[in-house]
Amino acid sequence: MGPTARKVSLTGIKPTGEPHLGNYIGAIVPALELANTYESVYFIADYHALTTIRDRDLLQHYTRSVAATWLAAGLDPDRTTFYRQSDITETFELAWVLSCVSAKGLMNRAHAYKAARDRNREAGKEDLDAGVNMGLFNYPVLMAVDILIMDADVVPVGRDQLQHVEYAADIAGAFNSVYGDRFKFKVPAPVVPPEDSAHTLPGTDGRKMSKSYDNTIPLFAPEASLRKVIRRIPTDSVPVEAPKDPDSAAVFTLLERFGGDDVVADTRARLLAGGMGWGEVKAQLTDALIARFGPMRERYEALMAPGSELDDLLVHGADKARKQTRPVLERVRDAIGIA
Amino acid sequence: MGPTARKVSLTGIKPTGEPHLGNYIGAIVPALELANTYESVYFIADYHALTTIRDRDLLQHYTRSVAATWLAAGLDPDRTTFYRQSDITETFELAWVLSCVSAKGLMNRAHAYKAARDRNREAGKEDLDAGVNMGLFNYPVLMAVDILIMDADVVPVGRDQLQHVEYAADIAGAFNSVYGDRFKFKVPAPVVPPEDSAHTLPGTDGRKMSKSYDNTIPLFAPEASLRKVIRRIPTDSVPVEAPKDPDSAAVFTLLERFGGDDVVADTRARLLAGGMGWGEVKAQLTDALIARFGPMRERYEALMAPGSELDDLLVHGADKARKQTRPVLERVRDAIGIA
Repeated sequence: MGPTARKVSLTGIKPTGEPHLGNYIGAIVPALELANTYESVYFIADYHALTTIRDRDLLQHYTRSVAATWLAAGLDPDRTTFYRQSDITETFELAWVLSCVSAKGLMNRAHAYKAARDRNREAGKEDLDAGVNMGLFNYPVLMAVDILIMDADVVPVGRDQLQHVEYAADIAGAFNSVYGDRFKFKVPAPVVPPEDSAHTLPGTDGRKMSKSYDNTIPLFAPEASLRKVIRRIPTDSVPVEAPKDPDSAAVFTLLERFGGDDVVADTRARLLAGGMGWGEVKAQLTDALIARFGPMRERYEALMAPGSELDDLLVHGADKARKQTRPVLERVRDAIGIA
Repeated sequence: MGPTARKVSLTGIKPTGEPHLGNYIGAIVPALELANTYESVYFIADYHALTTIRDRDLLQHYTRSVAATWLAAGLDPDRTTFYRQSDITETFELAWVLSCVSAKGLMNRAHAYKAARDRNREAGKEDLDAGVNMGLFNYPVLMAVDILIMDADVVPVGRDQLQHVEYAADIAGAFNSVYGDRFKFKVPAPVVPPEDSAHTLPGTDGRKMSKSYDNTIPLFAPEASLRKVIRRIPTDSVPVEAPKDPDSAAVFTLLERFGGDDVVADTRARLLAGGMGWGEVKAQLTDALIARFGPMRERYEALMAPGSELDDLLVHGADKARKQTRPVLERVRDAIGIA
């Protein structure tokens, strides 16, 4: 890369569930915006998902689904590098190399591992490692490889994921201090995007939308099923004719995000005046989501169809990524004495 | 393989030092004998050595040296499969897969890891994981992959390495119980060769010859240097003219192993009668070793020369091994949902 080359930003996407509206607003949109500033790299961390998903069909489905979601949401595979982690075979060999310079103590203190031990402690289990597999324990090393092998300058992460980038920097430093006369990894830096209201979406219960709160709205559900999900959002039992506080209900907050300005203003006024029920607001929200995400859903469904260009796009992305990862592994092998 | 195919035996060779006589008698000869009974697979575990060797030139040297030693000792690369672990890229991806079904608790109890903790405890360190890298901790998983990916039926091991095969069997079982409807690993069994006198060689101090006792005699040292090593073997200070107990000295025990019957019988008689010094026995031992291992050393040195056929042989061996490992990884990927 020349001296004027843009810095590389890397984003990993773990395929562990159906995409919901909160993912779109909180993760996909801000990550795609970065492509304006950085040379952007996005990868689907399917082998990370293997630490928890042992259903092959589900893992395959989530992997294709997350790929189709990001493409439908506007990821431009010509402009960015977009691939499946599992297509980059260099990653796993480098994981062994870097594990040989990674202190076990670091892994003992990793958040996900400690959380698993805490759960065992709370459950009164004597063996705090019960149910912990080595994939979970090794996770931070593989994460470091994902970052380092792509020569990433920055990694946008939420505050709860800062540790991953710190560990990657630490492991890069450990390798560089031993083998740095022959090869040095770039030490990556985290970028924490602002957690402002533009990037946070309330879920159906008013808390932040998150799979772990079970308060999500699917991004690409078929219309009938979307209508059903939204009809079921709990609201208070104030009678239709009574005046209502619009800001007390998640459905209105969501309508504000996705409805047209006119509709939102009119609905606010009618709720305050009384005579409008939550059911009607729910119908408006559904209509607004269908209007906003309908075309995106069509693209998603086309990509999800068997034999679509999705698989070719991922293979193409992997070819592009391996132009970067192959020479890195070659240089590492030379540096450590595996020739 | 057809139903009449021979069972597969797998032997891993860790390149962490110069080959000595004890390796030859205790490991190389018995392993090569197995090729008469089993379809034999030998690999140089260079990536295992990386957990302890951080000097690239040394690792490269030991790897070539151990390969040249086994070939010089009679390993037939046409009849067996002989390769470097680092040439089998499938190994590392499979290591990630199997780590996701390997209990961390197993690794906590692994001998090498526990020994490292014991050393820290004895040194009074508070952090028992001090200096432990993730390569050491993951070692048993990679070892399991080495075995399972080659579909080995048996693994000849010393008693102190039984655990490795037990872990490989355990990890195979864990994978099979989750994904066995689509792919099953063969569960390997250990074979412990008899620790009889034919397979044990005393070192220069009479204890078993071993690098860790610092009592070894190099297998392929140049003559002058071999003569020097043997001259330095400690013996008692009984005067030349006094009668001596032949069986009290390691040099005689070693002469019995490598000298001709006539020489041995004559020397025994002369030692018992008195008038023969240990220096003369040492010279006889040196001559016997040179006669026995001279041709082997020439072959070793030819293989160690830059540009010898050694590298081609290893590449050829890796090609042969990958005919086995590639389809295994393909089937595993299909079974777990990484396609």
